[in-house]
Amino acid sequence: MSNDKQFVEEITPQSEDFSRWYIDVIKKAELMDYSPVRGCIVFRPDGFEIWEHIKEAMDVRFRETGHRNAYFPMFIPESFFQKEKEHVEGFNPELPWVTEAGGEKLEERLAIRPTSETMIGHMYSKWIQSYRDLPVLINQWANVVRWEKRTLPFLRTSEFLWQEGHTAHETEEEAREETMKMLEVYREVIEEVLAIPVITGQKTPSEKFAGAKDTFSLEAMMKDGRAVQAGTSHYMGTNFAVAFDIKYLSRENNLEFAHTTSWGTSTRLIGALIMVHGDDRGLALPPKVAPTQVIMVPIGPPKKRDAVIARADELFAELKQAGVRVKMDDRSDVSPGWKFNEYEMRGVPVRMEIGPRDMENGVCVLVSRISGEKKIVQQDNLVEEVHAMLAQVQQEMFDRAKNFMEENFYSVDTLDEMKTLMEEKRGFTLAGWCGSEECEDKVKEVTGATSRNIPFKTTEQKSTCLCCGKPAKHTVVFARAY
Amino acid sequence: MSNDKQFVEEITPQSEDFSRWYIDVIKKAELMDYSPVRGCIVFRPDGFEIWEHIKEAMDVRFRETGHRNAYFPMFIPESFFQKEKEHVEGFNPELPWVTEAGGEKLEERLAIRPTSETMIGHMYSKWIQSYRDLPVLINQWANVVRWEKRTLPFLRTSEFLWQEGHTAHETEEEAREETMKMLEVYREVIEEVLAIPVITGQKTPSEKFAGAKDTFSLEAMMKDGRAVQAGTSHYMGTNFAVAFDIKYLSRENNLEFAHTTSWGTSTRLIGALIMVHGDDRGLALPPKVAPTQVIMVPIGPPKKRDAVIARADELFAELKQAGVRVKMDDRSDVSPGWKFNEYEMRGVPVRMEIGPRDMENGVCVLVSRISGEKKIVQQDNLVEEVHAMLAQVQQEMFDRAKNFMEENFYSVDTLDEMKTLMEEKRGFTLAGWCGSEECEDKVKEVTGATSRNIPFKTTEQKSTCLCCGKPAKHTVVFARAY
Repeated sequence: MSNDKQFVEEITPQSEDFSRWYIDVIKKAELMDYSPVRGCIVFRPDGFEIWEHIKEAMDVRFRETGHRNAYFPMFIPESFFQKEKEHVEGFNPELPWVTEAGGEKLEERLAIRPTSETMIGHMYSKWIQSYRDLPVLINQWANVVRWEKRTLPFLRTSEFLWQEGHTAHETEEEAREETMKMLEVYREVIEEVLAIPVITGQKTPSEKFAGAKDTFSLEAMMKDGRAVQAGTSHYMGTNFAVAFDIKYLSRENNLEFAHTTSWGTSTRLIGALIMVHGDDRGLALPPKVAPTQVIMVPIGPPKKRDAVIARADELFAELKQAGVRVKMDDRSDVSPGWKFNEYEMRGVPVRMEIGPRDMENGVCVLVSRISGEKKIVQQDNLVEEVHAMLAQVQQEMFDRAKNFMEENFYSVDTLDEMKTLMEEKRGFTLAGWCGSEECEDKVKEVTGATSRNIPFKTTEQKSTCLCCGKPAKHTVVFARAY
Repeated sequence: MSNDKQFVEEITPQSEDFSRWYIDVIKKAELMDYSPVRGCIVFRPDGFEIWEHIKEAMDVRFRETGHRNAYFPMFIPESFFQKEKEHVEGFNPELPWVTEAGGEKLEERLAIRPTSETMIGHMYSKWIQSYRDLPVLINQWANVVRWEKRTLPFLRTSEFLWQEGHTAHETEEEAREETMKMLEVYREVIEEVLAIPVITGQKTPSEKFAGAKDTFSLEAMMKDGRAVQAGTSHYMGTNFAVAFDIKYLSRENNLEFAHTTSWGTSTRLIGALIMVHGDDRGLALPPKVAPTQVIMVPIGPPKKRDAVIARADELFAELKQAGVRVKMDDRSDVSPGWKFNEYEMRGVPVRMEIGPRDMENGVCVLVSRISGEKKIVQQDNLVEEVHAMLAQVQQEMFDRAKNFMEENFYSVDTLDEMKTLMEEKRGFTLAGWCGSEECEDKVKEVTGATSRNIPFKTTEQKSTCLCCGKPAKHTVVFARAY
């Protein structure tokens, strides 16, 4: 928050140590800070505002697809977890427990939600009686807790923020359609708003959500070649309906179990955003989620300063009026060069410079954070030019990330090939898989890569398992993952 | 969620049992449901959406006054509470404790935040070094927990949602100005958006926030005459700065403690909203926060039905396009009369009826939930007419609530007078107070009323204490409170 830093600390280059680069950048750009509670971070205003923009982009699409927000208690009675066997096994090791409250020991321990299937399942069983009550389409924005052993800011923290959609339907077909529809909503937001290309596909059984019948995911490639699971959508079958007694009287007057889904994305998207777009100069933020889209830096000698700033103020007001998230840095005790570095480090997509000569000529200069392109534009046309450059930066960021992913996407036929790739280059590998958990485990053991998903679209279908050589049941994307 | 209820359950009349009326209404209108966790409720979509509209109204004003949102961990180490003596005494009895997590007993217990002064104070001490770092103006939207013995949906629940602003300043003057500025933001939202008139003033020492130097509140009158504290704003002095070591190098190069403030409003505003505006027919929601602002009910005989609905669809699209939150109920198996009752019960501000003859005449009928007024309007002019009636309903709701508060506002001189009033009529009473805690306690013991605040504006200054007869130090509003 200091307004006049005495020096610019160095950011570790990505090529030297990607993990240190990441921590350097998020701390220096003031997106987060460590908290005194193990594994929990503070989302500082610039970090939190990225989340707010993601939230807006999601929320408008959730609404358009007929969903409504609600809020359920974060405390979950211990007995609830016992009702779905896989679910309790999956989450039990990560739960924090409230054992005392209001000065008394509780009769039943309360978990803090790691996800809300159980609580929401319980409520749905009360609300759903007839097919006329279906579908139920609810989303929740909430904090959740998973007591992680190894944490990493944004990507894996003990407490994090997320949204979790929970829906109930009459038929398997309808529930499966919902599962896919929300996966597509996620793809749209992640690709079009966050400018992160993703590979959509189905998780293998060993990687699916605890209690789900099928899990689908979106996998993104970080600049170190590792994967981040950017979102998941689950078809639960009737597993939770059976466990929580979500039954309805059907059109044929039979008592049937509902088919449910759930789907979630979280603040780990902020981590992905940084690792996909950032570079050695610091953050690079897609305009659609950048807290500041345009930074204005008036330049020129002291005696012309006031006149330049007066004109800059007018342009500032115009941009603000047009809905651009613009900031001005008119400090006189800091050099323009220092400011350029500072806002590049903070990932501001477009810089606007204006000096005395620009004023005379009725122009100013726009500079793209991502390509470095400088464009002299007419002041009269500023709003349009700024919108155009913001759109261009947004598109370029996606294209660059997409190229990067394609360049680091390999096809392999043997475990040795994959091992070498994982050690030398990282990236995603496409390989055949027989479908056995043994082979999946072996891949992980030998290469460090896990199955990310069975992609819906692929340029190639593999015929043999990279591990055992038997016929391939699926063609799978493997990668080391965060 | 059932679409065709077989019968309309009765709502207990307010005059018969106000508490039962309240529970009947919020359950029946599906604003909330009880959860399996003691004192925690589920915010169902219509209840939660009211909160979302309150949030939007607050957020835009927080931003305009220079604040930014952030997010801090909900877990607070036990040692943090010990640092501010009054604070720990105030909140300790209500804390839930996490004692185990990730399969292990924790070395230090973690409280779940009842409010975040301590966590935020700790972080501010790291962020604030110089006067150049000040002011820090941060707000947080979060869930908080206070393990209450007696709970009431929305008004007092163990887990609730709120916003808490926390700011740090160079001087007392600036911090006090902030305290008042945010109180005024609250007044504006509560009066102009929620249509709830409030009395602003200062809390007496015994009623102030645990750890604050001065607390200011907004007090609203429910229809049973009881008070709800609708929001508070606190000047902390340097209490938390001393406890958490928030120091800065001043302009004069001295190390000084920062002056801090905090201010909060919560989902109890939803409870206040219901108790201020509701009536024996059910909810009445101010248009600015109503999830549905206009309900369209096409009427007429079966053979004309399709034509009416077709025209209604067009009008629906026009209203939606104009940003009106409109819904259509075109079910054929439910009578118009039943629908009228249903949406009046749900508090929808304006009903629009359209029948075959209206169609021919190019008109439709708007009906106000609050006054019952029916207005025949031209379809060509529908958007304007709807906006006008929504604005009128909003204003009428405020005026009615204001009249009610004025009618139930009494001036008293003796304890006996107040006792009689509290027993017979309820409402707010204005009385002189000597300033002693003994007299304040005695008032509570005898009348059940507590001091709400020392109002900034009052028509009358009392000269003697209603209790001991000594000279009055303050003129105070007393009332029974939720």
